[in-house]
Amino acid sequence: MDTNDDLIRMSAVAVRDLLLKEEVTPLDLLDALEARIAEVDGAVNALPTLCFDRARDHARRLMDKPVEERGMLAGMPVPIKDLVDVGGVLNTKGSPIFAEHVPEVSDIMVERLEAEGGVVYAKSNTPEFGAGANTFNEVFGRTLNPWNTSRSAAGSSGGAAVSLATGTAWLAHGSDLGGSLRNPASFCGIVGMRPSPGRVPATPTPPIDQTLGVEGPMARNVEDLALMFDALTGEDPRDPISLHHGGQSFLDAARSGWKPLRVAFSRDLGITPVDSEVADICERAAMRFAEAGVEVVEAHPDFTGVHECFDVLRAATYVAAHKRLYEEHKDKLKPEVVWNIEAGLKLTAGEIAHAQHLRAELFARARAFFGDYDLLLTPATIVSAFPVEQRYLEELNGHRFSNYVEWLAIAYAMTMIASPAISIPAGFTSENLPVGLQIAAPTRGEARLLAGAKVLESILWQEPIVPIDPRPGN
Amino acid sequence: MDTNDDLIRMSAVAVRDLLLKEEVTPLDLLDALEARIAEVDGAVNALPTLCFDRARDHARRLMDKPVEERGMLAGMPVPIKDLVDVGGVLNTKGSPIFAEHVPEVSDIMVERLEAEGGVVYAKSNTPEFGAGANTFNEVFGRTLNPWNTSRSAAGSSGGAAVSLATGTAWLAHGSDLGGSLRNPASFCGIVGMRPSPGRVPATPTPPIDQTLGVEGPMARNVEDLALMFDALTGEDPRDPISLHHGGQSFLDAARSGWKPLRVAFSRDLGITPVDSEVADICERAAMRFAEAGVEVVEAHPDFTGVHECFDVLRAATYVAAHKRLYEEHKDKLKPEVVWNIEAGLKLTAGEIAHAQHLRAELFARARAFFGDYDLLLTPATIVSAFPVEQRYLEELNGHRFSNYVEWLAIAYAMTMIASPAISIPAGFTSENLPVGLQIAAPTRGEARLLAGAKVLESILWQEPIVPIDPRPGN
Repeated sequence: MDTNDDLIRMSAVAVRDLLLKEEVTPLDLLDALEARIAEVDGAVNALPTLCFDRARDHARRLMDKPVEERGMLAGMPVPIKDLVDVGGVLNTKGSPIFAEHVPEVSDIMVERLEAEGGVVYAKSNTPEFGAGANTFNEVFGRTLNPWNTSRSAAGSSGGAAVSLATGTAWLAHGSDLGGSLRNPASFCGIVGMRPSPGRVPATPTPPIDQTLGVEGPMARNVEDLALMFDALTGEDPRDPISLHHGGQSFLDAARSGWKPLRVAFSRDLGITPVDSEVADICERAAMRFAEAGVEVVEAHPDFTGVHECFDVLRAATYVAAHKRLYEEHKDKLKPEVVWNIEAGLKLTAGEIAHAQHLRAELFARARAFFGDYDLLLTPATIVSAFPVEQRYLEELNGHRFSNYVEWLAIAYAMTMIASPAISIPAGFTSENLPVGLQIAAPTRGEARLLAGAKVLESILWQEPIVPIDPRPGN
Repeated sequence: MDTNDDLIRMSAVAVRDLLLKEEVTPLDLLDALEARIAEVDGAVNALPTLCFDRARDHARRLMDKPVEERGMLAGMPVPIKDLVDVGGVLNTKGSPIFAEHVPEVSDIMVERLEAEGGVVYAKSNTPEFGAGANTFNEVFGRTLNPWNTSRSAAGSSGGAAVSLATGTAWLAHGSDLGGSLRNPASFCGIVGMRPSPGRVPATPTPPIDQTLGVEGPMARNVEDLALMFDALTGEDPRDPISLHHGGQSFLDAARSGWKPLRVAFSRDLGITPVDSEVADICERAAMRFAEAGVEVVEAHPDFTGVHECFDVLRAATYVAAHKRLYEEHKDKLKPEVVWNIEAGLKLTAGEIAHAQHLRAELFARARAFFGDYDLLLTPATIVSAFPVEQRYLEELNGHRFSNYVEWLAIAYAMTMIASPAISIPAGFTSENLPVGLQIAAPTRGEARLLAGAKVLESILWQEPIVPIDPRPGN
């Protein structure tokens, strides 16, 4: 093992410590990543756009400052999902319409991350406009799962998850509307967390007060993820729903040792079929919370109405975000996106109002449930990685899904109740594919969510999770 | 003048100081208010429901605790607008449908206010479901303007404004979607502030993430209002958009002496007719900022599209909130409410999406504008108090308003850009009717808004604003 491999295999927290002690420089890290990308990314296509010149400029500017003024990431490299503007860098959104689009100005989220010493060196692959949970598009093609390169990496933050799994990133940015930070974490054996709405300020898009789509952190373990989360959070008045962090450090919270008294586990939330091997792996992982003295009870809130609620509000949000593109470029949009917008355009205000009622009821029931249980555990995805050629999961256990997102219900249920939810590795299937355990908390409960996830992670994984080389499969 | 009159004429901050020094008790204050209500409320009908037994129970419970454990309001009585649940107290929402409705549980907002030592002794009158800016309903009738009891008190927080103006409250609660905390302040010569969305946590209603309707404080001067605001603000995870206050005291902010460098004044924001006497009074008041060394410039953001944006989003919000009532009780709803819901039901998702786009554009233009100007000043209402028989302002300067809320455009413009906005007394018309000056800040800018408003208030009013006895007029 050479020095580069040593660096690549380290945790983000450990690498950040080296930066703070000036035992490595931000430029060293970029060199290490560039070499690693050359070795492995060709086999998985996680980071189709690189911007190392821009990154090295930024790294040098950081190195002109004393280390204590470089921000909390202190020069950690971070790839940004290819839906978000980075000034001067191609941002295709996975769409032929934007195949040559280079924005001048960075999104607020990127600007803030850079101010904390995050160095952007790559854009990570995503499905077209982030729609769907399999990462392929007509601009850059497919991102492949490194555990078996014939399989899907899931999505929409698929490139981000694969870069972490293959060691071409220590920390990554992703986003999540119906599970996009969690299901690629599940398929790829890494960690991704959907935060509460408003936690991560970003440049507002219509509707400026929407709480479905959020930006968030991904990493290889809970502490690393908490470090990234600290760098992303905090009030910014340019985002009208952004939240003040109240002075708390989520990394400290993750390390606090706080343990839940009682948690709930559900195989399916009563709303979805689930592969029995995946459910068994998650159930065994959840039950191991008992080793820390935590009571684990089979229970879940009543999620009646969640499919209708999500379908309607997702479609309405899609229309608000993409109606103009549809009017101008319908022929260049993939069928799932067109379907979403057309479904949205057919909605009446009465149907949207009914969905808002359903959401208020779901939220109220979840609040009551979290009065009895500190956390809610479920599978993060209902299957492990399926063949990459499959656009989405069409059926399971004889249930035929009604659309391209219904198979994500166990994830989008948490979106509807405004809960933060993390996926951590729970185990492996008989095919050696990773399976993620989803852990959710009441809205704003990230501190306890991270602390609880860290406790369970310590029980489940005696050895740290390290990058792998892409493994061909069929 | 007897002791009771002395108390009634004091500022809320001064009364709170007496409570903290235990020179008066919470029960003394309730006695004073009950006597004052008996003297004056019959002439104005501001507080149609009283609950002094419940209030005295609460006051006695507070008095069992040491004064430092009674919360920041320390036993200050507060009336709650008759749209919001107070456990065990009639909550009619101004609607015959709820004429006998007594909720068991208080709204989060009330629960939090009580935890800060706010003592609820009355419900303040409101138009049916808060719709419209003239306070009348079929349950309790009209609330009259104490400056001239033939005139409207405006609304929808009309009862609250009149209770402050007549000395039956030192602090009051109100709410605001299109101006309901500001236009009754303007008509009645008191102070009302629409906060940024999320500042005041409340029990969520559908849509749980909406940012149009907000709860907020009213008082007779800026410092008193800031005290009430401090008691209302702070994160509560039961409200998914609620904001952490970041440890700041808004009362301290109001007293900070911070002054803007440059502010903008506009008579009409380019979107509405305005009565010339009202505009002149506001312009003269705004220009007096110069006495504090503040540069005052005639300018405003481009509000193109604000009418369509507000009409559509208001109607969509109405449908979400009231669709079930419409389906079950259409015959018992007033025509403005029916019109609103029916307008909403006709909307398509495409129209709503277009309105969301307009809002995002308005928000972005306002953000840019507030880069050049610390605050934006306008008239709070475009007229002074009109005859109470008039349901709303139908025309002005030859412009016929297209619906019952268009005359409020100068207020709802601030709702669309998510700005906090306060109305402070600017002066009086030749008929001796009060006129309010609206001051708006960028979203989350309440600390500077209150500081700036306090500076201007000090210039405009050498003598404190004190309660008046209702004055008959025609």
